[in-house]
Amino acid sequence: MRQGATMSSVRRFVPDADGGYRWDAVDRLRYKEEGSAPFKDITRQVLFEQPDQAAQLRYFEVAPGGYSTLERHQHTHAVLILRGRGTVRIGTDTHAVGERDLVTVDPLVWHQFHAAPDCPLGFLCLVARERDRPQLPGEDERNALGVR
Amino acid sequence: MRQGATMSSVRRFVPDADGGYRWDAVDRLRYKEEGSAPFKDITRQVLFEQPDQAAQLRYFEVAPGGYSTLERHQHTHAVLILRGRGTVRIGTDTHAVGERDLVTVDPLVWHQFHAAPDCPLGFLCLVARERDRPQLPGEDERNALGVR
Repeated sequence: MRQGATMSSVRRFVPDADGGYRWDAVDRLRYKEEGSAPFKDITRQVLFEQPDQAAQLRYFEVAPGGYSTLERHQHTHAVLILRGRGTVRIGTDTHAVGERDLVTVDPLVWHQFHAAPDCPLGFLCLVARERDRPQLPGEDERNALGVR
Repeated sequence: MRQGATMSSVRRFVPDADGGYRWDAVDRLRYKEEGSAPFKDITRQVLFEQPDQAAQLRYFEVAPGGYSTLERHQHTHAVLILRGRGTVRIGTDTHAVGERDLVTVDPLVWHQFHAAPDCPLGFLCLVARERDRPQLPGEDERNALGVR
């Protein structure tokens, strides 16, 4: 007598042949379209996207030395570091981050995640399902932020 | 030049005097009102509740031997085990769960989390901000589920 449990499930977090981690029965996706923005060695999994929830919980895994795009947008980010370590840039500040740290990023604040050179960085990121597209920095903004 | 970073933050997951864990600058709340439903040794933290997100990410920590309420509701649960181990009942099935397992619970499916006797169980739970109140099992339902 399984009470409507057809979709209820337990999925495991397991190592992959390439040393990365993924959940069973969750597709591992490209982070973004190649060439659409600068990034390096990062994958994406959508963990939860329930019909009654206007939110998406995604998992990003950045390989050692990799990074996400430096970007900003109107929607907020709620991030929890799940695996490994690295740094997060928030505006002009850079913070070392490790497992279970919570990171919040407010609207229109520039942000970027880097994995450590010798360690991956895996993080959960909660966003609204309906959200604006990220903006990329122009040369002036890159100079103001002190990034190449 | 902090670009609107007044609320952006990094918060750390740190041990408490009682051996439990909590995040800096996040209140640790009662799980529920005492006496409102059966439960044992469980606390609650609301990690993320952004104005632009119609979702709440909560962290529940169950002490060794403790458990959440056996209940069901229309809203779905999206759960990620963050710390320790235990079991989850989903309908009439019981699954062992450990760190980083994902658990989804569909509408109106009875569910309950137990920490192991010798280990806490900490889990993230994503829900819609607007959601229905949990239902408790009556005696017939408890018998059908095989619980005392």
